[in-house]
Amino acid sequence: MNTLELMKQISRPSSSKIVLLVLDGLGGLPSLETGKTELETAKTPNLDKLAAKGVCGLSDPVGPGITPGSAPGHAALFGYDPVSSDIGRGVLEAVGIDFKLQSKDVAARGNFCSVDEDGLITDRRAGRIATEKSTELCQLLDKQVIEDIEIIVRPVREHRFAVVFRGNSLSPELPDSDPQQVGVAPLVITPLSPKAQKMARVANQFVDQAKSILAEQKPANMILLRGFSQRPQFPTMSDIYKLKPAAIATYPMYRGLARLVGMDILETGTSIEDEFTTLTKSYADYDFFFIHVKATDSSGEDGDFDRKVRIIEQVDNTIPQLIGLQPDVIVVTGDHSTPAMLKGHSWHPVPVLLYSEWCRTDKVTEFSESASILGGLGRIPAVQIMPLAMANALKLTKFGA
Amino acid sequence: MNTLELMKQISRPSSSKIVLLVLDGLGGLPSLETGKTELETAKTPNLDKLAAKGVCGLSDPVGPGITPGSAPGHAALFGYDPVSSDIGRGVLEAVGIDFKLQSKDVAARGNFCSVDEDGLITDRRAGRIATEKSTELCQLLDKQVIEDIEIIVRPVREHRFAVVFRGNSLSPELPDSDPQQVGVAPLVITPLSPKAQKMARVANQFVDQAKSILAEQKPANMILLRGFSQRPQFPTMSDIYKLKPAAIATYPMYRGLARLVGMDILETGTSIEDEFTTLTKSYADYDFFFIHVKATDSSGEDGDFDRKVRIIEQVDNTIPQLIGLQPDVIVVTGDHSTPAMLKGHSWHPVPVLLYSEWCRTDKVTEFSESASILGGLGRIPAVQIMPLAMANALKLTKFGA
Repeated sequence: MNTLELMKQISRPSSSKIVLLVLDGLGGLPSLETGKTELETAKTPNLDKLAAKGVCGLSDPVGPGITPGSAPGHAALFGYDPVSSDIGRGVLEAVGIDFKLQSKDVAARGNFCSVDEDGLITDRRAGRIATEKSTELCQLLDKQVIEDIEIIVRPVREHRFAVVFRGNSLSPELPDSDPQQVGVAPLVITPLSPKAQKMARVANQFVDQAKSILAEQKPANMILLRGFSQRPQFPTMSDIYKLKPAAIATYPMYRGLARLVGMDILETGTSIEDEFTTLTKSYADYDFFFIHVKATDSSGEDGDFDRKVRIIEQVDNTIPQLIGLQPDVIVVTGDHSTPAMLKGHSWHPVPVLLYSEWCRTDKVTEFSESASILGGLGRIPAVQIMPLAMANALKLTKFGA
Repeated sequence: MNTLELMKQISRPSSSKIVLLVLDGLGGLPSLETGKTELETAKTPNLDKLAAKGVCGLSDPVGPGITPGSAPGHAALFGYDPVSSDIGRGVLEAVGIDFKLQSKDVAARGNFCSVDEDGLITDRRAGRIATEKSTELCQLLDKQVIEDIEIIVRPVREHRFAVVFRGNSLSPELPDSDPQQVGVAPLVITPLSPKAQKMARVANQFVDQAKSILAEQKPANMILLRGFSQRPQFPTMSDIYKLKPAAIATYPMYRGLARLVGMDILETGTSIEDEFTTLTKSYADYDFFFIHVKATDSSGEDGDFDRKVRIIEQVDNTIPQLIGLQPDVIVVTGDHSTPAMLKGHSWHPVPVLLYSEWCRTDKVTEFSESASILGGLGRIPAVQIMPLAMANALKLTKFGA
């Protein structure tokens, strides 16, 4: 029996409430000047108070040494095995724009790009064209039918779009057409298995037609496709945990991830404050809330140590509002580390703070990487955070006689 | 290869001795007044001295967040995967009264209960009738034959009994007849799979006949059945570890669990002191001793913080006698936590103390939950305690060339 099956067996509905606050890319690395990470540099009196009353530790989203993408990082936080429940990039883009993927659809992530007269890529993102322009171009590519396959093209943001292939006998076993470098031509797509031959034919023809359709456009005169994938068949969080779960996220991808595990997606604004206002407004209607803060990750990816510090402080300011709602369980953590020093996701374990009346507090009195090493949670795989949250909410029955 | 297969491959017999002292439900939660758990409140100079010389840590019987019953808690301590080796309640009751279960037998746990003239349950335990009375009633129900199935009924303690169905074509895939509430009738048993149809027929007829036979009894005029199950086929601890293991336990269920993994069951009295006297007397005859202390769990379940503290202190008093025997390895731990604050089993990790000449001691100088967080064992699954004990007893050979 795997953990999800076990959780399904022992989870019980109850009126207690859990709030999972995810600061994307929370974990960091120390600044060379101060020896302190972003989280250790930030003034976080409210999180520190919560850490003092709660229990802390470090979690590995996938495993020690493994740098996770957003999808496995969040899958693990929701309690799903991050390796076996891997979600393709195409599916992520599609569900992230509220596109209702059907089970046999194959989705891919697209980039508008620029090619020169020889067809060689000069800019993989076509100068990050505006979303408005991209929306226009998507309309030019949308609604084609190749063989018996319907092709749906939707803008995402800037140069990014999602393409969905709908029809029979499609398999997602295709490599990317995006060579991930300039100065070369987009790759012709060769099927990775015999049953993907039709899909490869259709995809290559779609790319050829896009090239013709976009020929006169500037700078976006070509497309690149990657992450061909089908919607995974996950049991929902309601099935497993008997929860009524809701997601509050400003970025489409995280709403998409939450939708894949069956969360309701709440309308919210664009700021952290907006997200907490949404939480307060909808607090009575759900018993599980996933709140996603994106800017910790983006600032880390930009290498902007100070901005990441300020965003953590901004989140800290909202903590009294969260505590004021008196959730039975509060978990504050990240889906992975994004140290500004590395300008990208990293493998470093992520600090976890769990607060509940029953959490068996430890001696940790600040929320930080170095303090969490000595926390009562120890170092745990991120998939075990949901079972811990459920236990602390007294939503689990005993296992075995 | 799973851990048991690995252990089987590398375990070697030797003259060294291991004592596994299990304080049932040892782990606790801090009192709101003092901020200290039961174990932290208890004066345990002897255990603290042992902790200072040994190595400490925290263990998860099943996994973080999972509250284990006694069976998975002990299975894990004996080194068996607690999920795949789940043992049914019926089997537990039967083996706990020294009943020799055959491999095709189906066992169930029974309660004598009280029903009103409409057949609705008024007391699920019939006022906890005395064991003597229950023994009488079991004799009335014993030795029936329904279809070709022989039915054996044995008293356990107070209102509890074990019933064993013996014969061909029986399957344990039945739900309980016990609705776990009063004011309703006992449930008719519906088979959970087609091959359990005969077993369901026989069980329902047995319940009907019990109703007739007990009709004039007061207050125990009906029965409830639960935990239909068959004896699991475990490899014994001798097979796996090449040990000659013995169990010392005052409660039948724990003797039953020990018997399922092939331990000899030693006659003992009813007190902790009796158990240590038994240990001393039999010390020469075995190389592995499992000593089970029940009262830490019962006091925790009663919510009696102070009594749990006193029982831990009573165990502490016996530690010099244990050390006097000079075992090569001493392990002191619990099968799960039972915080008095929660009045029941819980998911919190359990302190573990391992002492041997070769244990690589840490800086922990007291045996407690909060000190164990910083211990050299870290936070480990309970199934890894036996491999550690075996290694410290120098009973394991090198793995691999």
